[in-house]
Amino acid sequence: MEESSNKVHSAQFLQHYLEEVITLLEKQQMEKSLVERSPTTNHELVETVLHNQQQTRLQEMFAPLHPADIAHILESLPLDQRKTVWNAIKTSHDGQILLEVSDAVRETLISGMEAEELATVAAQLDTDEIADLAPDIPKRAMLKILRLLNSKERKHLNDVLAYPEDQVGALMHFGMITIREDLNLKAVKAYIRKLKKLPSHTDKLFVVDQNDVVKGILPLQRLLTYSSIRQVAEVMVTDFIRFQVDQNTDEAARAFERYALISAPVVDNNGKLQGRLCIDSIMDFIREETDEDLLLQAGVSEEEDLFSSVWKSAKNRWGWLLINIATAFISTRIIGLFENVILQLVALASLMPIVAATGGNTGNQTSMLIIRSLALGQISPANVRRLIKKEVALAILNGILLGIVVGGAVMLLYQDEALAGVMAIAIFINLLVAVVVGLSIPLLRHKLGKDPAIGTSVMLTSITDAMGFFILLGLASLFLIHTL
Amino acid sequence: MEESSNKVHSAQFLQHYLEEVITLLEKQQMEKSLVERSPTTNHELVETVLHNQQQTRLQEMFAPLHPADIAHILESLPLDQRKTVWNAIKTSHDGQILLEVSDAVRETLISGMEAEELATVAAQLDTDEIADLAPDIPKRAMLKILRLLNSKERKHLNDVLAYPEDQVGALMHFGMITIREDLNLKAVKAYIRKLKKLPSHTDKLFVVDQNDVVKGILPLQRLLTYSSIRQVAEVMVTDFIRFQVDQNTDEAARAFERYALISAPVVDNNGKLQGRLCIDSIMDFIREETDEDLLLQAGVSEEEDLFSSVWKSAKNRWGWLLINIATAFISTRIIGLFENVILQLVALASLMPIVAATGGNTGNQTSMLIIRSLALGQISPANVRRLIKKEVALAILNGILLGIVVGGAVMLLYQDEALAGVMAIAIFINLLVAVVVGLSIPLLRHKLGKDPAIGTSVMLTSITDAMGFFILLGLASLFLIHTL
Repeated sequence: MEESSNKVHSAQFLQHYLEEVITLLEKQQMEKSLVERSPTTNHELVETVLHNQQQTRLQEMFAPLHPADIAHILESLPLDQRKTVWNAIKTSHDGQILLEVSDAVRETLISGMEAEELATVAAQLDTDEIADLAPDIPKRAMLKILRLLNSKERKHLNDVLAYPEDQVGALMHFGMITIREDLNLKAVKAYIRKLKKLPSHTDKLFVVDQNDVVKGILPLQRLLTYSSIRQVAEVMVTDFIRFQVDQNTDEAARAFERYALISAPVVDNNGKLQGRLCIDSIMDFIREETDEDLLLQAGVSEEEDLFSSVWKSAKNRWGWLLINIATAFISTRIIGLFENVILQLVALASLMPIVAATGGNTGNQTSMLIIRSLALGQISPANVRRLIKKEVALAILNGILLGIVVGGAVMLLYQDEALAGVMAIAIFINLLVAVVVGLSIPLLRHKLGKDPAIGTSVMLTSITDAMGFFILLGLASLFLIHTL
Repeated sequence: MEESSNKVHSAQFLQHYLEEVITLLEKQQMEKSLVERSPTTNHELVETVLHNQQQTRLQEMFAPLHPADIAHILESLPLDQRKTVWNAIKTSHDGQILLEVSDAVRETLISGMEAEELATVAAQLDTDEIADLAPDIPKRAMLKILRLLNSKERKHLNDVLAYPEDQVGALMHFGMITIREDLNLKAVKAYIRKLKKLPSHTDKLFVVDQNDVVKGILPLQRLLTYSSIRQVAEVMVTDFIRFQVDQNTDEAARAFERYALISAPVVDNNGKLQGRLCIDSIMDFIREETDEDLLLQAGVSEEEDLFSSVWKSAKNRWGWLLINIATAFISTRIIGLFENVILQLVALASLMPIVAATGGNTGNQTSMLIIRSLALGQISPANVRRLIKKEVALAILNGILLGIVVGGAVMLLYQDEALAGVMAIAIFINLLVAVVVGLSIPLLRHKLGKDPAIGTSVMLTSITDAMGFFILLGLASLFLIHTL
């Protein structure tokens, strides 16, 4: 598909469009309720007329839009309005819209569709596109779809679905052009002219032997600039980037960024061509990954969209909230141990949140830097010792400085030198604890093969909170309370 | 530049390479200190020999690597080792490495280079590449570089540098192929063959008139599949995506994702061609933006790299830490108001962090979802009311549920019904506060034209903390303390 068309619009335009759609829907909703309350005898007829009007109007509004733009508007609509629009337009558009919406929104769209409808939509898509939708398609519809495919397509579909989401095989496409090395460029050009259309993102052709093993690539640039009488074997690039079907997608994404790739062949362990990986899939992958990281930090999963139902959103968020409450109760028990100390010096109750918060913030800064560097592959056993040294030095420097700042503020507020001193020392120690925890959690999780981003912040904050309370109240009971 | 070469390596390979480099550097460091301590008379000579050996060995090691891979290794090396390697290899490689490293690392590399060296390096780069480096190049070196450029190049450089970082103009390149619409495709092919090389990421040619106004685009696909005797005017695409030089880069990035673009023309207000925007610049931009967001959440700026000096890192992190401490003192003052209440029911001191933490977490979940949706352009005045309704409903549901959970736990711990009830109500109210704050801060910042991601978390947490303490202790003084 060529990307250029008259269907391309700016963000501002889309915002404007979205508001028009919502206004239309609300007006229609109002008309409908007017009819219901009116004393006409023939409610049903009037409602049918109104409904048909609405369908037509919506179809007209969406007809000139690019599928990606329609997807964007659907994502921005509240659930009920989204369904109204989708019901009106789904038949007049193909499955491209389903491909473009986010996973959470796709689920809401598909949930209202019949198996037959879904099969009709899928019939217009390529095999790799069906594979993208597959996780959200109900079994009954999937069986119908499989019946529509030929045996080669069915094999492709099974191949893609067999790979876990984080492997290159799950992202590959099957639209690609392969040529043999004994052709000359003139023959290649004639072949392309006969094809009439190139798969999107074709910047190179794959040169394969009779066993489909990739021998080299022929960049379109060379096809256009080299003499037509030269042979593919002479002008193809033999040291080229290829990916293994079972390779980690993260790694492939980094290679695409690093070497500015547009497309690359995907091969199996014998070098046999399996498919093609393109920059657009990689961009979607990167966007989803980073989005997920950002939301997971706050304990929201990517499953949730802006207008997920209240019930679904609630379930989605409870996990982390409950974990947070459980860890907060640990702090509660620690403070409980020192109730006597607090009774004797109640200012401690006011001051203890400062020690906890400072530790949490410092620890988060360290862990975030580590998580990012792990994601970029910058941390190795060889440099990790140096890194730890640097962060500890930083914690000592920050501890001294912030200790002085907080100690000074406490002195001003309470005019109590001993209390100010204890606060300063507590801040200093908790900063050291924070940096050690902020370093170890992501590094350990990474070593155990787990995503270092998930849960680090929650675990870290609960430890720095509990330790902050313990250190301050413990120091106070040692140095400030003489009557115990 | 064609991306394919024998210089491409996997992440694992690079990790391994990095460790070899570090081992080599450490061995050489050891030899050097052995020489210094040895009783030889001619230290200087031996050291020079060792130094030359080291230079040669490092140059050999790095020679087969792709500039992007060398950049990656440099980013992973501690400061002193990074400088040693850079001094050894900088002359044998061109400025590509400087282009590939992150801003923070580039600064450390350039800081050790003479103005002459920098000018020599820049002489090998394109104008748009020099523009990428420009912010880090000292004035003296920049003047030398300007003297090496011809007047057209100097104009280009000034043009790019004139655009702020968040506008399309700052990211555009000047390497592109323009053609006239009265040519036939055969003539276009002959022209390309004469050029010998296409700029990287050329998937389309730009059709311009005599005033350089873009009339259409000619995808390479059409050049390859249409008959050679047809005219450019007949086969060019006239409804194509173009960007304005002063357009927001965020918007351009979304268009690249949405319409799966590889390159697009950049025009001024009169439609005159100014440059070309390519997917690789957009990917770098997206990666930097999301990285920045993730780090800013934790109060670390993108200026800091893994091995920034302790002093630089410390300064980078103080800002947010001090703000955090200042807001923590607000909570302190609020708790201070209720010291009498705490003295009468010391369990409140243990329980108050739970109310604060639950509010903070819920508010962060809401604000993070809003920040993401704002970034995706999904929120408009038309749907914001619905969104607020949904989040408030969610807060009520969560408030009841978590209130019961926490109240129950407090009942188990303290066997005090009144205390458990007050805790449950405090949790409920603070969750409502949290969701209102979590919605309003990012939405307000967005409305004021500011980045909704920056500082939201800190402001939110300080409000939910302070309100959490105030609500719990206030309720307690009303309902639990009868002797006041």
